[in-house]
Amino acid sequence: MKLKCLIDKYDTPLYVYSEEAIRNNYQMIERAFPYRPNQIHYAVMCNNYPDVLKTIQLLGGSVQINSLRELELVKKLGFKDEHISFTSIGLNEKSIKELINNQLTVNLDSLEEVEKYCKAGRGKHFGIRVNIVVDIPLEAGHTNSYRHTDVGIREQDFKSVKLIAARYGCKVIGVHGYLASNLLDSSPFFYYADYLKRCAKQFPDIEYINFGSGFGVFCDSAEKQFDFKKTGQYYSDITTELSTFFKRDIQLKIEPGRSLIAAAGILLAKVTNVKQLEHKRQVAINVGFGGFARPKLYDACHLIEVAGKDKIQGVYDVRAATVLQTDFIARDRSLPMIEEDDIVVIRNTGAYGMVMASGFPGCIKPKEIMISSFADIL
Amino acid sequence: MKLKCLIDKYDTPLYVYSEEAIRNNYQMIERAFPYRPNQIHYAVMCNNYPDVLKTIQLLGGSVQINSLRELELVKKLGFKDEHISFTSIGLNEKSIKELINNQLTVNLDSLEEVEKYCKAGRGKHFGIRVNIVVDIPLEAGHTNSYRHTDVGIREQDFKSVKLIAARYGCKVIGVHGYLASNLLDSSPFFYYADYLKRCAKQFPDIEYINFGSGFGVFCDSAEKQFDFKKTGQYYSDITTELSTFFKRDIQLKIEPGRSLIAAAGILLAKVTNVKQLEHKRQVAINVGFGGFARPKLYDACHLIEVAGKDKIQGVYDVRAATVLQTDFIARDRSLPMIEEDDIVVIRNTGAYGMVMASGFPGCIKPKEIMISSFADIL
Ligand SMILES: Cc1ncc(COP(=O)(O)O)c(C=O)c1O
Ligand SMILES: Cc1ncc(COP(=O)(O)O)c(C=O)c1O
Repeated sequence: MKLKCLIDKYDTPLYVYSEEAIRNNYQMIERAFPYRPNQIHYAVMCNNYPDVLKTIQLLGGSVQINSLRELELVKKLGFKDEHISFTSIGLNEKSIKELINNQLTVNLDSLEEVEKYCKAGRGKHFGIRVNIVVDIPLEAGHTNSYRHTDVGIREQDFKSVKLIAARYGCKVIGVHGYLASNLLDSSPFFYYADYLKRCAKQFPDIEYINFGSGFGVFCDSAEKQFDFKKTGQYYSDITTELSTFFKRDIQLKIEPGRSLIAAAGILLAKVTNVKQLEHKRQVAINVGFGGFARPKLYDACHLIEVAGKDKIQGVYDVRAATVLQTDFIARDRSLPMIEEDDIVVIRNTGAYGMVMASGFPGCIKPKEIMISSFADIL
Repeated sequence: MKLKCLIDKYDTPLYVYSEEAIRNNYQMIERAFPYRPNQIHYAVMCNNYPDVLKTIQLLGGSVQINSLRELELVKKLGFKDEHISFTSIGLNEKSIKELINNQLTVNLDSLEEVEKYCKAGRGKHFGIRVNIVVDIPLEAGHTNSYRHTDVGIREQDFKSVKLIAARYGCKVIGVHGYLASNLLDSSPFFYYADYLKRCAKQFPDIEYINFGSGFGVFCDSAEKQFDFKKTGQYYSDITTELSTFFKRDIQLKIEPGRSLIAAAGILLAKVTNVKQLEHKRQVAINVGFGGFARPKLYDACHLIEVAGKDKIQGVYDVRAATVLQTDFIARDRSLPMIEEDDIVVIRNTGAYGMVMASGFPGCIKPKEIMISSFADIL
């Protein structure tokens, strides 16, 4: 059993990423967006393990970054400026100068940033992140209510953007947006894309439209899938329309993070104790909030398996072996018979996993490795 | 202005801890619990910066730890076994053996742990963490509802604990509890202490009663204070009663974390941009969830000041200079006129601050330093 070898060598808790799964996801997404030219900017923030980034690079992918620290990382790994897109919020003068020196594509979030950018980079080009205000029905219970977000530049301020740009001989060459995180239904993206198109049409020098991401992953299921085909076709049609409108090729950009890497990661942990409760059992494992924050932070529900066992035996809560009362990974799961030293596999943990690990409270943080395929160990 | 020197030297974001404030808090707590012998076990999980631990040590304090990693840290700093208390959940056989080898006071969470402990440590002593089931009215909206917690050993299982202990010649020498986190009102602690006393009376070999902690801090105010005097007197009376009951000195233990260190820490951050919104301004600073998670994780409200300015000018949202839509530190605060490069001071950030820092998304984590007194810089 190769899983045992892996654990003997690297110990638990351990994040394992599958190169094959990243490749499959990448190619699935690439195929779903038939429009060319396009550019897939992997969102580095959701998993910055160097082998993950190298895999994306080998597939021809680009990156979306949000900090100078991420810039340093992707540069070190050999990403070229034309493959890097920078979008953040609240840039100061110093960062703006550094971005200008690097000739990166930058999407600015506010008039104040536009002013600083144009002043520091006379004659330069930039994109803007637009504020999403249209009334798009998101899923019930979705936490990231975009309705009151102050992110991005409002449509009524586009005129000011153009005035500032003109004053310094700068050009607005792109519009960028991000609707909301982890949407499982594709229909909000259609309304959103229409809005982004309307924004793009107001900037005559536009070269790209960046739809951002937010494509959801069903973390509690291996079968259910976000409808990439429909979304890809819709974004492609929108961009075709823009190209016709401007009579030149507009580039289509997206920034998938979660959908590229969530299912390409698993977290392996060891059972430290099984406690009998009145009507169920409570399994303690050697990872919790400090190694994988999503369950506590978002009440996220991740599939859990027990390595080498598949006959369901009873109902379990799964928690961390820490002092915290509320350090739970899952509740009321039907699982096989679990014993001390068993290995549990937490699925869909490739995105927003290790990057949020703090070790709290007083724990060892997980390690990370990449293997060629999950088939080699599971 | 010494603050400027500090920042020139260490840069922002920076956690600054005050030795004087720790000392004042420690002595205030010590005075509030008149009963002797007592032992104050500082909860290492809430801030493990070595200078903080050394300060506690110099004050004669002990520590509460929850992992072997914390054990290693406090041993390295010179804490003696008799000053270390270990309480966690879900201990495996290997950890139990290591704890037994170290002669630590251990509070066990389950019958399963008790069985493992007694088997591995014939003739040894241990404490138990008790399950809190009594109907104690907590504050409205308190998140840590203890009512359904499965933490600790239930009263109806005490008989089994004693049977297992007897079988291996072991003794139960302490009871331990933890009510809930950050309670601002002291009255729930009285009900809770009565319950813990009832538990303690059922173990004839008892040497200590450990009330845990949960003493709250008003993070949005410098004036309001948890009522330590009342709580300290109540816990003291309970322990006196136990000593009379057992006709020997029972030790009183508490495990304050937050109340010792929260107000002894501030987080310094730099303003990177000020964005004009319709009815207020949005300040971006160079720290957010990745450096201080409590606002996002618990909706925690922390006092914010602007260094060198005190004339209130307008209403501000304070957010991180990151790409995340929801990376807010505070909303709708009345603050002085804020400009780029201003330093903001986030108060009461000494506890559960740096220990939860992940750097997410792609940011530099804060540094930490200790100074002798906040009066030196503010
Ligand atoms: C601007 C931007 N692009 C891309 C991403 C990655 O999104 P996702 O992980 O939903 O694919 C994020 C995530 O918050 C983002 O804010
Ligand atoms: C057993 C135990 N002791 C002490 C503490 C520290 O508590 P506080 O920070 O509320 O003082 C905690 C925190 O969760 C705990 O679980």
